[in-house]
Amino acid sequence: MTEVIATYLVHSIDDNFEKKAEGIALGLTVGSWTDLPQLEQQQLKKHKGRVVSIENVGSSGSRMKGIIRIAYPAANYSPDLPAILTTAFGKLSLDGEIKLVDLEFSPELTAHFSGPKFGTEGIRQLTGVQGRPFVMSIFKGILGKDLNFLLTQLEHQARGGVDFVKDDEILFENVLTPFEQRIVRGREVLEHVFSETGHRTRYAVNLTGRTFDLRDKARRATELGADMLLFNVYAYGLDTLQSLAEDPEIAITIMAHPAVSGAFTPSRKYGLSNQLALGKLLRLAGADFSLFPSPYGSVALEKGETLQIADALQAPGLLKTTLPVPSAGIHPGMVPQLIEDFGINSVINAGGGVHGHPAGSAAGGKAFRQAVDATLSRKTLSEAAQTNTELQQALELWGDKVR
Amino acid sequence: MTEVIATYLVHSIDDNFEKKAEGIALGLTVGSWTDLPQLEQQQLKKHKGRVVSIENVGSSGSRMKGIIRIAYPAANYSPDLPAILTTAFGKLSLDGEIKLVDLEFSPELTAHFSGPKFGTEGIRQLTGVQGRPFVMSIFKGILGKDLNFLLTQLEHQARGGVDFVKDDEILFENVLTPFEQRIVRGREVLEHVFSETGHRTRYAVNLTGRTFDLRDKARRATELGADMLLFNVYAYGLDTLQSLAEDPEIAITIMAHPAVSGAFTPSRKYGLSNQLALGKLLRLAGADFSLFPSPYGSVALEKGETLQIADALQAPGLLKTTLPVPSAGIHPGMVPQLIEDFGINSVINAGGGVHGHPAGSAAGGKAFRQAVDATLSRKTLSEAAQTNTELQQALELWGDKVR
Repeated sequence: MTEVIATYLVHSIDDNFEKKAEGIALGLTVGSWTDLPQLEQQQLKKHKGRVVSIENVGSSGSRMKGIIRIAYPAANYSPDLPAILTTAFGKLSLDGEIKLVDLEFSPELTAHFSGPKFGTEGIRQLTGVQGRPFVMSIFKGILGKDLNFLLTQLEHQARGGVDFVKDDEILFENVLTPFEQRIVRGREVLEHVFSETGHRTRYAVNLTGRTFDLRDKARRATELGADMLLFNVYAYGLDTLQSLAEDPEIAITIMAHPAVSGAFTPSRKYGLSNQLALGKLLRLAGADFSLFPSPYGSVALEKGETLQIADALQAPGLLKTTLPVPSAGIHPGMVPQLIEDFGINSVINAGGGVHGHPAGSAAGGKAFRQAVDATLSRKTLSEAAQTNTELQQALELWGDKVR
Repeated sequence: MTEVIATYLVHSIDDNFEKKAEGIALGLTVGSWTDLPQLEQQQLKKHKGRVVSIENVGSSGSRMKGIIRIAYPAANYSPDLPAILTTAFGKLSLDGEIKLVDLEFSPELTAHFSGPKFGTEGIRQLTGVQGRPFVMSIFKGILGKDLNFLLTQLEHQARGGVDFVKDDEILFENVLTPFEQRIVRGREVLEHVFSETGHRTRYAVNLTGRTFDLRDKARRATELGADMLLFNVYAYGLDTLQSLAEDPEIAITIMAHPAVSGAFTPSRKYGLSNQLALGKLLRLAGADFSLFPSPYGSVALEKGETLQIADALQAPGLLKTTLPVPSAGIHPGMVPQLIEDFGINSVINAGGGVHGHPAGSAAGGKAFRQAVDATLSRKTLSEAAQTNTELQQALELWGDKVR
């Protein structure tokens, strides 16, 4: 059956989840059923929603909690995310205490989505980085600064040996550091560092502006030699990300930023699960990377949630996999824990943990790379610090614990 | 000062809202301040966020509640909604219990938004309807039905004298009732009813599909003679709505549907206020109509919230006004209350309250028009029912109370 199965968490003052489920399955599809003439039932059969399962999962305060699963036939919608979200959680999102926790796409429906253009394997081939997690750093304090400042910061980060550097997501089109200049001049800087060190760092430039201009802008970025695009997908829409990822002329990786997603994920009663919003849906829409709050920073998610996100991004399936980028509050002392949590198919991403290094941003990057190498060769960080000055300095400042 | 001032409701275990506010104002703009050299402070001054006000507003359970207002200089972002939302509620949406309750755009910033193309006055001129609220009805049980079924239902609704008929928001591109056929054949039906009755009903067709196809599809709809577009704005993105509204070749009104908005509005602690999501932002992005749950149906908002939405849509300002369409659970007996709540510059919108009329959908529409006329000529509905059969039948079925 070509369909999508939606899983909802419902909070209710009673536990009549069967009635609720039937109401959803009919109300969001054919409207009514038992009072329809047989002939009409036959006509409408392939459009009727179906209650897949109902589970009472206890209570929370005065509310009973239920998990309801409903199948929506693909005959009812075009195979795009706006249609599917409107079907499964359009009007329903307004109807009481209900949270969309999962969407299961049947294989026929998944086939309409091409997913990440590169995916984990593609990114490994592109970069030549094998057998270890990637390391990324973030520009810091760039707003209001000029291009020279940005390029100097880029160079310092590249010299630390990080694989990727990403724009601040709040850096928009501006006269001081214009998009095209960042790409062209940034590339020159990174080529220069490569020629000196043999290490190539890649720069994710923030794709911003009006929706209908994004495709041309991203194509132009590709032409100008941009390495990667950063994209605030939830300030735009999942379908826009999908179109960018599908476009053959946008031949570079896309990194999805979680900006604005906190508007609809943290409530226990409403919105979408993080697993769906920052995991499955981003992979379906074609993000090569997904940033999300790590369990360890000041802006943090519960560890279980971050593991669910990473699983949705990396689980075997019909689509290429997306690299998880647990972010915020990361310093080198956390590297063993991050690798234990997210494996080597992930990106270790830091801002303050790079730029705050006592010996500067380049040393900050080096400390991360040293921590990664140590962990993968089964050394403790303290052992490795004995022969790695930058790591030693980092551990002295931040310690070797996750908190 | 060209800026946007964001108002946040913060729930916190302590009441140190000043520290929180300073952290936001700096963290989302220049990063740090007091430790910067004087010269750098001078350079960054026009980019620095500013705490406008802080108010302690009591407590809720174990949490203290504060209202924080922060000004973000326009120098920091391009004048588009994705950039503004990412600035004011991008990363911040992920940072604890914080809700974005308002955004105040300075006049210079508002000037970058053209707002509704027609607005209330434009719609009055277009339709010739003056001095009364508009009446709208919704297709019912259309999924899986063919074009003849849809056209027959359209005709019945038109014969009831409603001003507008809207597609079901879950009707997507499909073989039984294709978009272009609905426009062309629908127009024929409505012309026919007009030639017989002298009353012209207008049809809002659901604009769906892939984001980057929408502009061409909407232009094509205009060419084919579509009256209005229905648009699930939050399944796409506010900026997409804005581009449709700005396009001179899309010379028809746009009705925004609230589908999916319940993912980020109902929580008291997270997300966006309804006033912002279904009010101010839709007007800014150019919706001519905004549907939202009325205070009176099964899918309902608190009355105060609906009045705030309507106020944001209709308050005097630099932009044309948007017609409020309080929806769900509306029957003719509610008309006096709806007019008292929302005034005549609003749309009375019903589905079941039209189609469920004992004498059919045309009678349902008539009952609404009779209820409107009665209310405006200061008659009670019971009085008017004495000479209006359809209204009498409606009142017998549903009563004349809002609940």
